[in-house]
Amino acid sequence: MKINLINPNTCIGMTEKIASSAKSVALATTDIIASSPTHGPESIESAFDEVIASAALLDVIRQGEEQKVDAHIIACFGDPALDAAREIATVPVIGIAGAAFQLASLVSYRFGIVTTMTRTLPASEHLLQRYGYQHFCSGARATDIAVLDLEDTSEDIYLELKNECEKSIQIDGAEAIVLGCAGMSDLAARLAEELQVPVIDGVSAAVKLAESLYQLGLNTCKIGQYGLPLNKAFHGRYQHWGSSKKQ
Amino acid sequence: MKINLINPNTCIGMTEKIASSAKSVALATTDIIASSPTHGPESIESAFDEVIASAALLDVIRQGEEQKVDAHIIACFGDPALDAAREIATVPVIGIAGAAFQLASLVSYRFGIVTTMTRTLPASEHLLQRYGYQHFCSGARATDIAVLDLEDTSEDIYLELKNECEKSIQIDGAEAIVLGCAGMSDLAARLAEELQVPVIDGVSAAVKLAESLYQLGLNTCKIGQYGLPLNKAFHGRYQHWGSSKKQ
Amino acid sequence: MKINLINPNTCIGMTEKIASSAKSVALATTDIIASSPTHGPESIESAFDEVIASAALLDVIRQGEEQKVDAHIIACFGDPALDAAREIATVPVIGIAGAAFQLASLVSYRFGIVTTMTRTLPASEHLLQRYGYQHFCSGARATDIAVLDLEDTSEDIYLELKNECEKSIQIDGAEAIVLGCAGMSDLAARLAEELQVPVIDGVSAAVKLAESLYQLGLNTCKIGQYGLPLNKAFHGRYQHWGSSKKQ
Amino acid sequence: MKINLINPNTCIGMTEKIASSAKSVALATTDIIASSPTHGPESIESAFDEVIASAALLDVIRQGEEQKVDAHIIACFGDPALDAAREIATVPVIGIAGAAFQLASLVSYRFGIVTTMTRTLPASEHLLQRYGYQHFCSGARATDIAVLDLEDTSEDIYLELKNECEKSIQIDGAEAIVLGCAGMSDLAARLAEELQVPVIDGVSAAVKLAESLYQLGLNTCKIGQYGLPLNKAFHGRYQHWGSSKKQ
Amino acid sequence: MKINLINPNTCIGMTEKIASSAKSVALATTDIIASSPTHGPESIESAFDEVIASAALLDVIRQGEEQKVDAHIIACFGDPALDAAREIATVPVIGIAGAAFQLASLVSYRFGIVTTMTRTLPASEHLLQRYGYQHFCSGARATDIAVLDLEDTSEDIYLELKNECEKSIQIDGAEAIVLGCAGMSDLAARLAEELQVPVIDGVSAAVKLAESLYQLGLNTCKIGQYGLPLNKAFHGRYQHWGSSKKQ
Amino acid sequence: MKINLINPNTCIGMTEKIASSAKSVALATTDIIASSPTHGPESIESAFDEVIASAALLDVIRQGEEQKVDAHIIACFGDPALDAAREIATVPVIGIAGAAFQLASLVSYRFGIVTTMTRTLPASEHLLQRYGYQHFCSGARATDIAVLDLEDTSEDIYLELKNECEKSIQIDGAEAIVLGCAGMSDLAARLAEELQVPVIDGVSAAVKLAESLYQLGLNTCKIGQYGLPLNKAFHGRYQHWGSSKKQ
Repeated sequence: MKINLINPNTCIGMTEKIASSAKSVALATTDIIASSPTHGPESIESAFDEVIASAALLDVIRQGEEQKVDAHIIACFGDPALDAAREIATVPVIGIAGAAFQLASLVSYRFGIVTTMTRTLPASEHLLQRYGYQHFCSGARATDIAVLDLEDTSEDIYLELKNECEKSIQIDGAEAIVLGCAGMSDLAARLAEELQVPVIDGVSAAVKLAESLYQLGLNTCKIGQYGLPLNKAFHGRYQHWGSSKKQ
Repeated sequence: MKINLINPNTCIGMTEKIASSAKSVALATTDIIASSPTHGPESIESAFDEVIASAALLDVIRQGEEQKVDAHIIACFGDPALDAAREIATVPVIGIAGAAFQLASLVSYRFGIVTTMTRTLPASEHLLQRYGYQHFCSGARATDIAVLDLEDTSEDIYLELKNECEKSIQIDGAEAIVLGCAGMSDLAARLAEELQVPVIDGVSAAVKLAESLYQLGLNTCKIGQYGLPLNKAFHGRYQHWGSSKKQ
Repeated sequence: MKINLINPNTCIGMTEKIASSAKSVALATTDIIASSPTHGPESIESAFDEVIASAALLDVIRQGEEQKVDAHIIACFGDPALDAAREIATVPVIGIAGAAFQLASLVSYRFGIVTTMTRTLPASEHLLQRYGYQHFCSGARATDIAVLDLEDTSEDIYLELKNECEKSIQIDGAEAIVLGCAGMSDLAARLAEELQVPVIDGVSAAVKLAESLYQLGLNTCKIGQYGLPLNKAFHGRYQHWGSSKKQ
Repeated sequence: MKINLINPNTCIGMTEKIASSAKSVALATTDIIASSPTHGPESIESAFDEVIASAALLDVIRQGEEQKVDAHIIACFGDPALDAAREIATVPVIGIAGAAFQLASLVSYRFGIVTTMTRTLPASEHLLQRYGYQHFCSGARATDIAVLDLEDTSEDIYLELKNECEKSIQIDGAEAIVLGCAGMSDLAARLAEELQVPVIDGVSAAVKLAESLYQLGLNTCKIGQYGLPLNKAFHGRYQHWGSSKKQ
Repeated sequence: MKINLINPNTCIGMTEKIASSAKSVALATTDIIASSPTHGPESIESAFDEVIASAALLDVIRQGEEQKVDAHIIACFGDPALDAAREIATVPVIGIAGAAFQLASLVSYRFGIVTTMTRTLPASEHLLQRYGYQHFCSGARATDIAVLDLEDTSEDIYLELKNECEKSIQIDGAEAIVLGCAGMSDLAARLAEELQVPVIDGVSAAVKLAESLYQLGLNTCKIGQYGLPLNKAFHGRYQHWGSSKKQ
Repeated sequence: MKINLINPNTCIGMTEKIASSAKSVALATTDIIASSPTHGPESIESAFDEVIASAALLDVIRQGEEQKVDAHIIACFGDPALDAAREIATVPVIGIAGAAFQLASLVSYRFGIVTTMTRTLPASEHLLQRYGYQHFCSGARATDIAVLDLEDTSEDIYLELKNECEKSIQIDGAEAIVLGCAGMSDLAARLAEELQVPVIDGVSAAVKLAESLYQLGLNTCKIGQYGLPLNKAFHGRYQHWGSSKKQ
């Protein structure tokens, strides 16, 4: 199968990192196509960044559709534009936050989220509410590491992250850690080994769920809420959505 | 005061209609500047439309900021991009759905929502949940009138809408009607008179709330979740957000 | 328009204070009639006080109806007797707690409540639940200043209150402060200036909402839950309600 | 033990009826003192009626305290003034709605409420929410029998009530019926026999709970939320509360 | 009446202890038959223990049915197998946790739970959620006293328990204490005297509720969810359930 | 990897059926060991059946542990004994209801559940609440086909089931169907083809999730709530649990 793994920001380093994480867990028969939008912010750390990146990533969904992929993964912990993507895609679309919550709930009584900037914490709360996982979560903690600083592979960054994970386990009672940023996916294995609790990287989780749906022949229901949007005129920089939205 | 009244779709007729509704209820000292984005869809009827319109309307927020307006109103019933707009604006931003819910709850025990397409109903549910008004709502009903068909001023359209309002009152127990589309604002007065219950148009409601905040000197807290986004690089068609995001 | 601004306790100083706050924010065309019941407690600090004051304030609602006011405001943070007042009034009735929550949610991600006695905290919880604003609230804090001690204009009282507001902001993460007692309305402006976050006084908020409803021609739906009570016999000290309940 | 069984309205027939129901289930050692306020409405069918009756019934609580009763029961399905009564009483206070919900949940998976007027339905909803029994309730149904018409012992009234109980069982899936008015207590036994499901009369339920608390030596915690109200001045017709509130 | 008081674990000391507690509060006409299963764990401190004890205690329910008891009490704070027991019993079945919550909510604004092992805390959370009492609970605290160590009557154990109760009152704001283990029932009276707040032992509470139901003639609705299970084959060590499930 | 696929009832036909379903979707490298307990009921259709089957299935978990399996699947829609199984297992344990909800939420806006007997509907409600998927579910419907009648492969049974699925889609608005019994797993493919919406069989879903966890190296956190139960004495028919609980 072919998976369109979308990094919704424009940071190439992060696209490469998640591609590598995804490939390391994918089945031999799974082809990971990592991509990112041409347009938009270099990182997503506010509602503003997310709105811009959301519009930009829909172009990458369409690209994937043209390439006849079998699933799309939106690899940003806010699961931006998930409903919109499901509308325009003909194959399943999975967000990494939702994917991580699902698998975390299978291996722990309560999981903690450890993320980047303090101001992204409400995004975690909204996602937990949207997916109904509030009672599985012992709390979300911010490291105040900026998303792009995760590109820095220094030990300091790792230790800050690990330190916050330890607080989540010892103070909040987390029995598993959900990493709150796609840019942390390369650190999951080391953290798991050193923390001795399950550490869930949403990118890897989403890849396995995409493969699961594919093998079961399950696809998004295209009648109802995720049906194709009505055709209509789009103006200016979105003119290209005006007539060829449907595949 | 100056209010930036934003129609997030590109349909000029609707922009004119809401301008007229807003002006008819504004104080003499309130200056309504009605505007709409250059880019984006002609109407908003799906999550996809909303994501595109959200990115587009942020440009209009910035325009308003440059014109030194005292408040912004996002005049689409989904309250798209509300958090993002609050981050980049220096003055209050009000969504018409939230505004309508607030005033409706002051004059009725339970209100009903009557909206356009069936597939926009989940948007109403999400808004009720976001704002905490689920228990004030007797239910949302769709007329399956397309947004642009509201431009059609024929009696038929009016009667279909009125018919659904009557069901909301008689079957669901609504004691007030919240109109679920900015494009219905011109019909509120007639409906109120014929239905004999309060009919709340979010555009008018938002204008009064904007004036209220202004007169009380209340402005968005710019420390915390609605602080200005961090400066960062934006690429491609969003390059203009890269350096001058702050006012 | 004429607003019947009701202080439900019998403390004249507080009635004067809220009248002054209300007048300072009202439109030139708004006439504020401040009043308080002849009967009942000097302050409301327990469920017991509230029950007595509730019965007493309904007489003041009737007085206002006889004076043909256009709205009633119940200026006690517990919003006592709100539903009962809406039943016997022919014009909108607004509680100051609900009004404060509404405006606070427009200018902050999360607001804190700072109130008087610890034992009034459950009242705040009930109101947040009733109105659906729990998730907008970062917590309620008590100063243990007795309601009548707010009549004391000493710097000490002010500083105690300010101190609790600071804890609400710094510890609980409040981005705006809702003042939990009508008797604090004269301190809102100074607090806002010194705390540098929005400070919402419910009295002022309710005045603007009453004006908003009036200008929009919105009135309580009198069919259904807020319909006039059935006529029936009342005995003893409530005999006067027996026959002239209807206007 | 002595129980102060309070009918909060002034209808003597109802006081006698509930006295009789209570006595029929009380232990031989339990003394039922049935009483009603001198003041207030003849029946409680709106929020307005309830506010007036609430203030009036507190005098009857005090009377009971002077008579050194061991528990108070508020025998109106809205459980009016329950918190206030707990504050001024030195012994337990039980509301009949809460009592009925508790016992109903012990003998059925889901119970239905069958009550008087349609407009009292929101009171049932609030009580279910307050006590946390929403998920035990299959729905509340109104008979639109006025409270005082329950004094009428005609077969018609009984059949109307029985008919609504049958709908609750057959349509809503109720496995037990909670009677939504103290004035129905004399009909519980016949309904139970004919409907063949448990029928819970709150008056009887409350008597057994009062006896249970008494036998276990459990009394209201008087430190905290149910502590005695602070002493303060009361004016006019409530002057008597000013100094002798404490027993 | 005859009550089948079931200790679901096999520790005879605990069976005797709860028998003594139950008898000390039962009416003279109530016959307490204390029993425990022949099979299963010596104490219940994990989900695993509870599953085994649940199957084992159903045999004791059947024994009670054969002895024609009038009610069954499941005397383990997890209320194990409550629904299953209600299905196979022809008379009411009461769990001690639910019973304790009910009476605690009648005498306090918020109660705290003080229990044994930390890992039983989720059981308390589930019970609060199941019964709808979350908002009545100020929190659950574990003493990490093993269940069987409660058989030890040393002062140390008592003081550890009392210490945690004091934290519940002073830190969490509990106004009453619910004891989270049947094995603590002998300590309730001393704790109540020393802590000066109501202390609720679920065993005693359940006895009074069982007597209440009996005196009111209320029995489990045997149509619907608590109807007798369908007859079917059972194999191996559960073969005895195969044909004589019905009484 | 080796999966211990447990049918918790003793019906061999059902064990074979789910084995076949599981094998049809498993990877080539996955070894499915289908098993069922020696003890217990032939089908699970009440809380009573579930309690007995729960105790019985734990023996099969232990068997699987001795066979060094890599995951256990509990193939009954009530997810019986899930927490207990996680405590005694050293590898992940997955319930088919939770698994089905997770995948269904990835391919539909709202899913419906179609199950066997009416009296199992509360079990579905509890599971939705436990896992937080209530808002993803458009409702649960019962066919009143007994579990063992699913062994009957006649067209009638299929058509009854299909008919209820169609109601779920057309009346309740389901966009996907979750099959509410392991015994329906052989019908999923035909239903999906004829209904034209995703049909999710929990057995297949659980197999893919088990494989996903295995490939990601994620295992149940054995510190905390799912830690091994404390060692203790077990009596009678559960004596074998007394000393060798740990692997």
